[in-house]
Amino acid sequence: MENLKETTISSKEIFKGRVIDLYVEEVELPNGKTSTREIVKHPGAVAVLALTNDHKIVMVEQYRKPLGRTIVEIPAGKLEKGEEPITTAKRELEEETGYTCEELEPLISFYTSPGFADELVHLFIAKDLKKLTHKAELDEDEFVEVMEITLEEAQEMIVNQQIFDAKTAYAVQYLQLMQKSKQK
Amino acid sequence: MENLKETTISSKEIFKGRVIDLYVEEVELPNGKTSTREIVKHPGAVAVLALTNDHKIVMVEQYRKPLGRTIVEIPAGKLEKGEEPITTAKRELEEETGYTCEELEPLISFYTSPGFADELVHLFIAKDLKKLTHKAELDEDEFVEVMEITLEEAQEMIVNQQIFDAKTAYAVQYLQLMQKSKQK
Repeated sequence: MENLKETTISSKEIFKGRVIDLYVEEVELPNGKTSTREIVKHPGAVAVLALTNDHKIVMVEQYRKPLGRTIVEIPAGKLEKGEEPITTAKRELEEETGYTCEELEPLISFYTSPGFADELVHLFIAKDLKKLTHKAELDEDEFVEVMEITLEEAQEMIVNQQIFDAKTAYAVQYLQLMQKSKQK
Repeated sequence: MENLKETTISSKEIFKGRVIDLYVEEVELPNGKTSTREIVKHPGAVAVLALTNDHKIVMVEQYRKPLGRTIVEIPAGKLEKGEEPITTAKRELEEETGYTCEELEPLISFYTSPGFADELVHLFIAKDLKKLTHKAELDEDEFVEVMEITLEEAQEMIVNQQIFDAKTAYAVQYLQLMQKSKQK
C-alpha cells in the first residue's frame, strides 16, 4: 500500500563486510515525521530439505558463532555473487552432506528478518539422493557433522527445543504436512 | 558437539544502534586456523498467530525499509529490555491489531538467521479475540494496515508469493496442519 511507504532522506554506510553490509537510514514516515532505520544487507541464501531413499531428513550440526553454540539445521548457505539459487542449493548439499541429488525443486522463498535485514532464503527439496564417491570440499572455515533423522525424530527435536531454526522448523513441518495429506 | 566450537580471539564493536548492534570477531576454528565472523546482536522478538472467532487469521501489512516495500505478516515486534515474551506478544497484538485475547500460548521459538544474527523469535497463538474499545497506540514510527484472512486465502498468498515471511509462513503451515489433524 502506497500510504505506508517510508521515503529515504539519507543513507549512511556503517560497515561493508565479507557477508553483510550495514546502513543507517533517515526516513520520512507516512505522517511526515522522521525516524531512523538500521538495515543489514545480505546476499540471500538457500536451504535444502534433502530426503534419503529410506525417508530420512539430512541435517547438519554446526557451530554458529552468533549463538555461541552448535545448532542442528538443514543444509544451507549464502548465495555467491550472480549465482542462481538452484546452483547454490546443489553445491551446499554436496559440500555439507556428501550427497548429490537427481531431483531438486524450489519449495518456497521467505525473508527471515524483515525488520532489520533483507536476507531472502530460497528453500528447495532434494530427492533421489546419491552418495558422492568423492565428498566435495567444505569452505575452509566451515565444519559440520552430518546426521540423518526420521520425521518423527525431527518433530521430537522441535518439541524438545533441540531444533530451533526457522528454515528447519518450516521444512520439517512441510514434510509432516505432505505425509499427512498422502495418508488420506 | 565440542569439536565444532569456534573460540573468540578478539571482538570489535562496529556499531551500537537503537535496535541492533554489530560486532566483528576473530575466531579460532576447530582446525586451529583463524577466520572472522560478522555478528548482529538483536534483543529478540515475538510473533502472534491470532485467530478470530470466525476462524480468520489476523495479518498486518507494513512497510519494511530493509525490503523497500510493504509485506503481509502476522503481528510481531521486538522485545523491550527485561520484558517477558508473553507480555510483548499481548502488547504487540493490541497495538497492531486493536484486538486483545483471553488465551495466549507459546507455540515455538526459533532463530531466524543463525548465520549472522542472534535474533530469536517467540511464536504465540492467540485465541478468543476481543476488539478493544480504545485501540492501543502504535509506536510513533509504526504504521500498519490490519487484514483478516481465511486459512485458504493465506495459503493462496503463500503460493502466489504475496506472503514471503518466515514466521508467517510457519504460522500458516502450523494452522493448516492443526486443522488437518482435527479432520481425522
